[in-house]
Amino acid sequence: MNIQNLDEVLRNALEDSRKYIREGKVASYIPELAKVDKNLLGASIITVDGDRFHAGDWQHDFTMQSISKTISLVFALQHLGKEIVFSKVGMEPSGDPFNSMARLETKSKCPSNPFINAGAIAVAGLIADKFEFKEYLSFVHKLCGRNSIDIDKNVFESENRTGMLNRSMAYFMKNSGIIETDVEKTLEFYFKMCSVKVNTNDLANYSCVLANGGIDINTGNRLIDSEILKIAKTLMVTCGMYDSSGEFAIRVGMPAKSGVGGGIIACSENKMGIGVFGPALDEKGNSIGGYHILEFLSSKLGLHYFSNEFSSKIFIASV
Amino acid sequence: MNIQNLDEVLRNALEDSRKYIREGKVASYIPELAKVDKNLLGASIITVDGDRFHAGDWQHDFTMQSISKTISLVFALQHLGKEIVFSKVGMEPSGDPFNSMARLETKSKCPSNPFINAGAIAVAGLIADKFEFKEYLSFVHKLCGRNSIDIDKNVFESENRTGMLNRSMAYFMKNSGIIETDVEKTLEFYFKMCSVKVNTNDLANYSCVLANGGIDINTGNRLIDSEILKIAKTLMVTCGMYDSSGEFAIRVGMPAKSGVGGGIIACSENKMGIGVFGPALDEKGNSIGGYHILEFLSSKLGLHYFSNEFSSKIFIASV
Amino acid sequence: MNIQNLDEVLRNALEDSRKYIREGKVASYIPELAKVDKNLLGASIITVDGDRFHAGDWQHDFTMQSISKTISLVFALQHLGKEIVFSKVGMEPSGDPFNSMARLETKSKCPSNPFINAGAIAVAGLIADKFEFKEYLSFVHKLCGRNSIDIDKNVFESENRTGMLNRSMAYFMKNSGIIETDVEKTLEFYFKMCSVKVNTNDLANYSCVLANGGIDINTGNRLIDSEILKIAKTLMVTCGMYDSSGEFAIRVGMPAKSGVGGGIIACSENKMGIGVFGPALDEKGNSIGGYHILEFLSSKLGLHYFSNEFSSKIFIASV
Amino acid sequence: MNIQNLDEVLRNALEDSRKYIREGKVASYIPELAKVDKNLLGASIITVDGDRFHAGDWQHDFTMQSISKTISLVFALQHLGKEIVFSKVGMEPSGDPFNSMARLETKSKCPSNPFINAGAIAVAGLIADKFEFKEYLSFVHKLCGRNSIDIDKNVFESENRTGMLNRSMAYFMKNSGIIETDVEKTLEFYFKMCSVKVNTNDLANYSCVLANGGIDINTGNRLIDSEILKIAKTLMVTCGMYDSSGEFAIRVGMPAKSGVGGGIIACSENKMGIGVFGPALDEKGNSIGGYHILEFLSSKLGLHYFSNEFSSKIFIASV
Repeated sequence: MNIQNLDEVLRNALEDSRKYIREGKVASYIPELAKVDKNLLGASIITVDGDRFHAGDWQHDFTMQSISKTISLVFALQHLGKEIVFSKVGMEPSGDPFNSMARLETKSKCPSNPFINAGAIAVAGLIADKFEFKEYLSFVHKLCGRNSIDIDKNVFESENRTGMLNRSMAYFMKNSGIIETDVEKTLEFYFKMCSVKVNTNDLANYSCVLANGGIDINTGNRLIDSEILKIAKTLMVTCGMYDSSGEFAIRVGMPAKSGVGGGIIACSENKMGIGVFGPALDEKGNSIGGYHILEFLSSKLGLHYFSNEFSSKIFIASV
Repeated sequence: MNIQNLDEVLRNALEDSRKYIREGKVASYIPELAKVDKNLLGASIITVDGDRFHAGDWQHDFTMQSISKTISLVFALQHLGKEIVFSKVGMEPSGDPFNSMARLETKSKCPSNPFINAGAIAVAGLIADKFEFKEYLSFVHKLCGRNSIDIDKNVFESENRTGMLNRSMAYFMKNSGIIETDVEKTLEFYFKMCSVKVNTNDLANYSCVLANGGIDINTGNRLIDSEILKIAKTLMVTCGMYDSSGEFAIRVGMPAKSGVGGGIIACSENKMGIGVFGPALDEKGNSIGGYHILEFLSSKLGLHYFSNEFSSKIFIASV
Repeated sequence: MNIQNLDEVLRNALEDSRKYIREGKVASYIPELAKVDKNLLGASIITVDGDRFHAGDWQHDFTMQSISKTISLVFALQHLGKEIVFSKVGMEPSGDPFNSMARLETKSKCPSNPFINAGAIAVAGLIADKFEFKEYLSFVHKLCGRNSIDIDKNVFESENRTGMLNRSMAYFMKNSGIIETDVEKTLEFYFKMCSVKVNTNDLANYSCVLANGGIDINTGNRLIDSEILKIAKTLMVTCGMYDSSGEFAIRVGMPAKSGVGGGIIACSENKMGIGVFGPALDEKGNSIGGYHILEFLSSKLGLHYFSNEFSSKIFIASV
Repeated sequence: MNIQNLDEVLRNALEDSRKYIREGKVASYIPELAKVDKNLLGASIITVDGDRFHAGDWQHDFTMQSISKTISLVFALQHLGKEIVFSKVGMEPSGDPFNSMARLETKSKCPSNPFINAGAIAVAGLIADKFEFKEYLSFVHKLCGRNSIDIDKNVFESENRTGMLNRSMAYFMKNSGIIETDVEKTLEFYFKMCSVKVNTNDLANYSCVLANGGIDINTGNRLIDSEILKIAKTLMVTCGMYDSSGEFAIRVGMPAKSGVGGGIIACSENKMGIGVFGPALDEKGNSIGGYHILEFLSSKLGLHYFSNEFSSKIFIASV
């Protein structure tokens, strides 16, 4: 395999995945998201050696949505520490849809993990209590390698105005003491971080940091501590793809996180970061085209963590 | 690191883990298991290069219990195929304890995955319908590298006589069509596979097959197909340690499966298979001493799949 | 109102209710019940003064099914006492369908009340441990005023062979200690009591005992103690019509109990006992025609306990 | 029995019930309620013939809390009709605590009934959308026979500021369309109706209207339609005492509604209305002293709807 091949594999992945789009639907519960063209499809790959590959609508902007939950988790872990963060959220898959809250009443007042909505709102509460949103946004700039990244105001206002289920969860957690700060401030932070506007190149940059041990390949700077990186990537394996994380882990086998804006990040250890985008979602809330692009790439490039076909060294050498 | 070191690391792991035993309890819901000495602790490592390391009560026999769920899954996948197996069980963590059945009524008639009791009973039903138990046992012999392995009749009879919750699950699934064969035949198979008696060397042999791409290092024979191995190991990551799989994945980071008999298997890709044993269990049902041995080994040897500290090549070379 | 009128009101009730039959379905989960003609419809009234009124297929035999749960409750209360019975079942509506068991795991190991299946099986276990079925049957004879009443062997065998969900519940309760006796003996008793074959005249006789303070109008004998009668009738109000008990209480307002065989008993305090039969069931498991007959009678005769239109005295006098 | 006797029975009821107070606790989740003296105990009876009996702290003011749910239900039924009201709430006991909301997600988006918090908030939303609070308050004045009744501003503000669980429910129902009007306006209405300050004489006046077929004995005016009264009283039987309604129906047997302020209303058909007050609550949220007063009265006066000991006529005549 060489660079030319990787380019071709990526183009083939897009071509092959396009046919699944018609089975998906754009997110409808946020009015602003419902307006997006469901046929968009794009992807970017950045290898740890710095090679970049793009295909399709990779320059199209979309909002991060739940992908941001991985960044807010890392931000909270770095600034507040493991003890505080995991006193508010668990580390276990919930077995329920991302927007479920019944378990908060029936099982544990702690949300199961930081990637379901309730868990991410709890983490957002921790951050919003101590930090300005711009401090978080500045971390996003570093991870994605672009300082002009900002929120999509229309999406933010649409979510803030209509996000009644998230509001319900937040007040529930305020009642049980999981959220200690102001609920509306927490929700403003949460909706803002979901509304951050990126393209697949930005996502690939970020996921390349994840693949590369937390170090930015552009600057050589460490952006994420090793221990925190391990936590984040492991949670991406067990909880990153909503309640189809288990099946995704089998079929694709990379730490990944999806968002209902249509984006997915995935990283292959010491190899590459991948960002994909396709707003048509499957019934679990994952980009249907994006999922298939990742499955295609995993299969063709042996990216599954248990693929056992290539050793890291051999693969990297051959690129 | 060299072989001498690995021996020392393993002894240190046992020594360090012994202090947790007093916080654990032996399984009490199966009368025969309640008789075991809770202070037992043992471990075995077999590297893919064939080196073997043992410590503590590694020669002590115990029953596989839920560890067998990984073998029955592989057996069913190899003989019946993915379509049939995954028409009866899902691939997702359930978020619930291993012996929970409420979700069968409230969510889906398919058990969430093959490693909770309901899922393993469903898989046992598929096998029991077509195969004799001795055919399954013969596969266990190959995986563990010992032909004298057999069931512990007292444990089997104890479970068969008292396993009312498993019986309840089985009849529930008979009602919903998940189990199509005879319920009592299914349960007999299930209780037998749980009652298979092994030691940590047997487990290490089996987990070394998992670590080594499905190939027995002793004979060079392929015992498990690549694709099936990938499924089994991925499910061990997401669902292998009951409802603390998520935390184990963060803290230890190896595909693993525990049993209430006190055993745990864990494998480190292309490196080694590990078998541990300690009948004192934590509140989730995992060996409390065994868990800490694995955490110690993972930390000292960099075995976490996202440890990022050693490449496979470097590690294997240095042993 | 006079006797002639009551006869006419009953005939009108049947006529008016017949149109709802097409919306219902016969119980299909017990193969033997699925064979019944869904267009059957019958009713009997017996007043506390001994007047009898019949209409439609009142002589047609059907099995009691869940109606028997009221008799087994009374039998258990009379022979074993309140303390023992209510140590195994609660007194609260469950909010769930009659065949639900999730709450046994998620809420309380005691079934919510003796009229959901799990609760009735728990009560059957108490009785089966100490009494022969014929002792129970003899009590049925007295309540219904007919000594030739017996079980329908085909239905019994059909239920015993296929009742896997009830079997699942029973083993679940065996596991949690709610059932202390043999499970299969318990189920045999339960399926037998459900299979007792009656007609609406038998039911009206029994419900007239309930209406008449526990005293058989034919013999003047007390068959049910006052305190136990109060318990049984109150539970019939809160839990008698499965998970539409609340709506039935509003629309009809008589203590009642339905069975999936198509029968319903209802009683109006100091006035009359009513037995209806129509095997076409609504989605909750209540006879759809029978429900409407009772609603019609309640409305025309002012039988709702809060109808406030007639005092008992005035009504009885005018008949 | 004569009037003198009823006075004595009431005093005995209080005396006998006082011993249970030490087992109870005042409501703590509303800070303002936590300040109340738990030893207060009072009761008032008003017969349909206009005789009034009082005992203990009957002149002490307390807030209606959930008792108001019966008034808002009647108000909504009278002004908006059954179709609209029961398109938003069900008629069934939920089997869950009054402040549970899990069922909104797991079972039905309609709250089970109008007396659990979610259901009452849904009804409050219907009213708040069309009426001023003062119009509702004016109806309270008529039912209680006192125009000076008003809200307790401290309690209202305390609930409004701290009622995060009710807020969570309201936003959940806003999301699912059960609440169509503004959530904060709905909650303001709900917290205000809970904060209406009364004494047991006021409650007895109201419950006497319920006992007397909806007609105010003081003025002869009909305050509640017959059909609506039947609905309200029946729901008080099946759902009035939180998740111990079933047991209360057996032990006491009167339509009743409790509030966490310590009040309970109960009515005996064509006989009397009763108001009791005791802020020490049992673990279900019912006044522990008040519950025992009602049980004592029911037992001594034969007030259970299935007591079968006195006919209405005989009783009323003898007073």
